[in-house]
Amino acid sequence: MNPRVLEIPGSVIRSIAAKRRPSSIDLGLGEPSLAPNPEHFAYAMTAAFERGMKYTANAGDHDLRAAIARTYRYPDMERAENVCVTTGSQEATFVTLKTLLDPALDELLVVEPAFPSYVKMARLEGVTVRTVAMGEDQDFAYDAERIVAAIGPHTRAIVICSPCNPTGRVLGRAQAEHLVSALAHRPGKPVWLIHDEIYREQTFTHDAAYLADLYPHTVVTNSLSKSNALTGLRLGWVLGPRGFVEQAIKTHAWVTSCADTFAQYVALHVFSELEGVREHAPWYREHRAAVVAALRASGVRAIEPEGSFYACVKLSPGRASLDVADELIERHDVLAIPGSAFGAAFEGWLRLSWVAPLDRVAEGIARLAPYCERLAPP
Amino acid sequence: MNPRVLEIPGSVIRSIAAKRRPSSIDLGLGEPSLAPNPEHFAYAMTAAFERGMKYTANAGDHDLRAAIARTYRYPDMERAENVCVTTGSQEATFVTLKTLLDPALDELLVVEPAFPSYVKMARLEGVTVRTVAMGEDQDFAYDAERIVAAIGPHTRAIVICSPCNPTGRVLGRAQAEHLVSALAHRPGKPVWLIHDEIYREQTFTHDAAYLADLYPHTVVTNSLSKSNALTGLRLGWVLGPRGFVEQAIKTHAWVTSCADTFAQYVALHVFSELEGVREHAPWYREHRAAVVAALRASGVRAIEPEGSFYACVKLSPGRASLDVADELIERHDVLAIPGSAFGAAFEGWLRLSWVAPLDRVAEGIARLAPYCERLAPP
Repeated sequence: MNPRVLEIPGSVIRSIAAKRRPSSIDLGLGEPSLAPNPEHFAYAMTAAFERGMKYTANAGDHDLRAAIARTYRYPDMERAENVCVTTGSQEATFVTLKTLLDPALDELLVVEPAFPSYVKMARLEGVTVRTVAMGEDQDFAYDAERIVAAIGPHTRAIVICSPCNPTGRVLGRAQAEHLVSALAHRPGKPVWLIHDEIYREQTFTHDAAYLADLYPHTVVTNSLSKSNALTGLRLGWVLGPRGFVEQAIKTHAWVTSCADTFAQYVALHVFSELEGVREHAPWYREHRAAVVAALRASGVRAIEPEGSFYACVKLSPGRASLDVADELIERHDVLAIPGSAFGAAFEGWLRLSWVAPLDRVAEGIARLAPYCERLAPP
Repeated sequence: MNPRVLEIPGSVIRSIAAKRRPSSIDLGLGEPSLAPNPEHFAYAMTAAFERGMKYTANAGDHDLRAAIARTYRYPDMERAENVCVTTGSQEATFVTLKTLLDPALDELLVVEPAFPSYVKMARLEGVTVRTVAMGEDQDFAYDAERIVAAIGPHTRAIVICSPCNPTGRVLGRAQAEHLVSALAHRPGKPVWLIHDEIYREQTFTHDAAYLADLYPHTVVTNSLSKSNALTGLRLGWVLGPRGFVEQAIKTHAWVTSCADTFAQYVALHVFSELEGVREHAPWYREHRAAVVAALRASGVRAIEPEGSFYACVKLSPGRASLDVADELIERHDVLAIPGSAFGAAFEGWLRLSWVAPLDRVAEGIARLAPYCERLAPP
């Protein structure tokens, strides 16, 4: 068998999540608890019977591709030809890495803390990975200076998830401009930016930067999973310069052929409305405000989310996050994800999701507070 | 970018298919013209609202995996743990090749004529490919002797599509037993068999062999695309020994995470009925009989299909299949796929699909007959 597959370790997140009981307070969940909008499915059912369930083109339905490009309106990425529809943002990222990077030459730079999939996908492809950690002293805010300093001679792409899973930090405009300016002034082949925008519709700051607005060598990956509570639908996309997307479509064709036609009908309906991808945004804004209030009341050191549906808390000095997560689920029936799952830099932290009902989230925070570093009273 | 992606050539099949006009007689189509059974979708809609649209486990819904394994009942492959649900059989084959073969050491043997995707997927993974052509003098019948003779010291897997796209030939029991017996007696690491069963429910002979019945190192790939006219649903699976499937699930997790939950609900309904995957089988049997009659009446040399929904015809000596296919669509408004798309051994042939209405298929055969080799009158 392929040694790169054999070497893939088991998932820390899944092994912790497997300890969940029906009674557990689940702050581990990486998917919305909202129900999807049934109108999108009603449209898809009608389309399925009127238009059938045939293959679409490899790149996806042309109208859907055009609607996605029009929704985001990134410079020189406003046409159907700039989009490849994929099986969720997992395949979008897989196809992007596989297309962009030559395993024999190129290196991927992953900005951490980060969801573990980027590193694992790159290893599966035989691509060398370098990581750069954001600073704990800055609560892991994106720091362009650090990212630029980490670029090596073989770095060909940098992956940034903003809003960030796990930290909830958002790349701000000044940092993004600093980063892009440094890349633009580098001699030689361009370094690509991969902007994972999966939590785009859970953004709570007005200072969010969109790299594709600023830098032509940007590939955006996204999906309907988080914005529309459609994790199970597996409908994502790659959005990028036409020359790149042409190649990505070839990779995609041999990986999955094309995305699910039913899921594409659902997406056509979502994108037919101007604010379709933002239909759940008000819920997240309200929920986030309540969670921030609960965190402040608890007195623990936390990163107040600028985006995503996570909040991260700092453990008392010397506590290993995996041990605490184990103790929390076993003794206190609270599921939280250990920071170590997101890179060594995030050891000593826990990632909490806050999509459960608010009283459950608040009760969970109360139960885990004794494990956390306390803020000095003001 | 990745040179292996840049090197992927365009698809001959798609470039011919792009010449289709609304008036064309389409004998190129690789998907059923039947409509899917709406009952499966009604069930899925109910499930979507009762159970939501969350991620399933990476390997797929446990009940669905169990139902798939139970339906085929291959020895030691009868449990949920033997199944990984995928995004169509394209991802099933991609994940199988990627998991099974070490690009640094292993070689894939492709039995031709074959759908071009196996060779292209292997090249994308950097796996060396060897091909072995079945004999034109035997109308490309599967020939175990030839396959065994082509196995090299690095051959680690052999991919066989039976019923075959394009030839419509089915691997018979005697040939399968000969092949499996030779593999079982080889010293050293086992050579795996990958049986692409995508046309399983379009089998018109009682002598069909199922390799997983005969040989433990077999991986089966399949989907609902052809059996239930659900090409657009992208619901497939890998069925194999538990140790292999465990590794395949890891690959699948980083390629697409999990299959579409809605598609899995549809599949749960298909597999809830004992003969769910055979609901269209009678239609194909009847259609096939009529097509065989039309071919016989035309007097052209054709391979009467033992399976699949294709029939292949031999061109007059010296005619290049790509040229003839071009001329057919441009002058006679008939779309047929040139044999050269399926390997050098199939040059001089055309693949015709026969899922269009029968009078259209018969008219198409009449228009292309002048390009074909004629059988001597009996």
